[in-house]
Amino acid sequence: MTKYELQKLIFSKQSVLCVGLDTDLYKLPETLVSSYNTKAIEIFNKKVIDATLPYTIAYKINLAFYEIYGAAGYEMLANTLEYIQSLNEPVFLIADGKRNDIGNTAEKYAKAYFSKPLNFDAITINPLMGRDSIDPFLKFDDKWIIPLGLTSNPGAQNFLLAKTNNDEYFFEKIMKTLANDISSEKMMFVVGATQQSLLQYIRQLFLDYFFLIPGIGAQGGNLQETLQNTLTPEGNILINVSRDIIYTDNTNAFQQKIELKAKEYQAIMKRYII
Amino acid sequence: MTKYELQKLIFSKQSVLCVGLDTDLYKLPETLVSSYNTKAIEIFNKKVIDATLPYTIAYKINLAFYEIYGAAGYEMLANTLEYIQSLNEPVFLIADGKRNDIGNTAEKYAKAYFSKPLNFDAITINPLMGRDSIDPFLKFDDKWIIPLGLTSNPGAQNFLLAKTNNDEYFFEKIMKTLANDISSEKMMFVVGATQQSLLQYIRQLFLDYFFLIPGIGAQGGNLQETLQNTLTPEGNILINVSRDIIYTDNTNAFQQKIELKAKEYQAIMKRYII
Repeated sequence: MTKYELQKLIFSKQSVLCVGLDTDLYKLPETLVSSYNTKAIEIFNKKVIDATLPYTIAYKINLAFYEIYGAAGYEMLANTLEYIQSLNEPVFLIADGKRNDIGNTAEKYAKAYFSKPLNFDAITINPLMGRDSIDPFLKFDDKWIIPLGLTSNPGAQNFLLAKTNNDEYFFEKIMKTLANDISSEKMMFVVGATQQSLLQYIRQLFLDYFFLIPGIGAQGGNLQETLQNTLTPEGNILINVSRDIIYTDNTNAFQQKIELKAKEYQAIMKRYII
Repeated sequence: MTKYELQKLIFSKQSVLCVGLDTDLYKLPETLVSSYNTKAIEIFNKKVIDATLPYTIAYKINLAFYEIYGAAGYEMLANTLEYIQSLNEPVFLIADGKRNDIGNTAEKYAKAYFSKPLNFDAITINPLMGRDSIDPFLKFDDKWIIPLGLTSNPGAQNFLLAKTNNDEYFFEKIMKTLANDISSEKMMFVVGATQQSLLQYIRQLFLDYFFLIPGIGAQGGNLQETLQNTLTPEGNILINVSRDIIYTDNTNAFQQKIELKAKEYQAIMKRYII
């Protein structure tokens, strides 16, 4: 999917919602788990997709939640992707794996997630090893990389928010180095919904780039501030919500409740998308 | 495996060799590939293990080379591990995945690689997201983390060799922050065989820690300098060699040639292990 197509999708669906399929067997409705065992993850994903697709422009699938089940996990991942793709509705698909390695290895990761059967649109990248470790991911047409900019976990203080000898934040050095020769047509950044003043600052530095924004919880305030500080006239953000949507209810009515929750998020978002 | 057991293994085998099973279908002997297709990877691994185990104290398996084959890749990975473990010889097993994510996700990665069936001894970690992203990996008894310190690729210049506002290298800040409260009984560092003066400097800073050292090529000089600069009286290094050993020959005599190559490496190493 191109940048322009993704922006068009934001305006047609009036949404910047990305639903995170971090599907944890131990948090699923009991009826599903007792009927399907591990396979409940795949069944649940399909129900989440059916419930949220009208309000959603992207799905982010965290690979760790599938990797833990080995070959069976891979099958559930592939079946989930196949299901979304079979619906023939444009939606942006992100492999959240934060992969990073030297060139010949990075090439394997790129092929694993950008080729069929998975055929994701984008993969999250950990950029620590530097510019050359990212090159193999850039060789696929219409595919995106999403390197970590500033993450929302407490540990961001340790390194990403440390300062360089140029008095820049370290995350800022990373983002500037990559943006120097990687276009906003191929690269987004992960920017966590931490301090809002930092979000404003980062948005001013990188106006043209999409941000994938994790860390939004149940609080509407936080969501609204994030929209105010990061949404541009062209769109250019994906706000990821995982647990607050997919685990909103674990009774038999879970699918309906998930739909309502996604709709609630989209209703707030559309006020800002003009 | 404990630190003491690993040190004992170094002295009993007179070796610090770690063989990297970065097994690439396109570099295997043709007879194997034409007989077994993709499965040739697993068959080849077993032959490499048989040929190298007398000279080797560790195997490092790069996950990307298996991930690219999806469920079948996972099976080959698990079968390779099962084979090594069935030999009942002490050897240290490293999952080279450079994983990194927030707490609840990191926990999934830790379980995936430290639990059965894989049951690796150690996993390589990308520490960029900070201290809290590493915690879940530390909760497994007798298991190790191997965060990136300084990598050997050109891109190390971009970020790891950048300076902080304290005039430290960034890799140094990372290593010091982690070594501050993670013991050398649970953590090694990846330190690439780049400039030898840096290797000396890093060894002086972290005398008690094992280093996993990639980047050694065919040149004996490089290997010998690395041994001089990093080997301690207790051992405390693993020198990884992948391509130079496993792709040394692709005729029908490949297994014998691989054995000779591993033996050559060990013969140099044993001169330094006293």
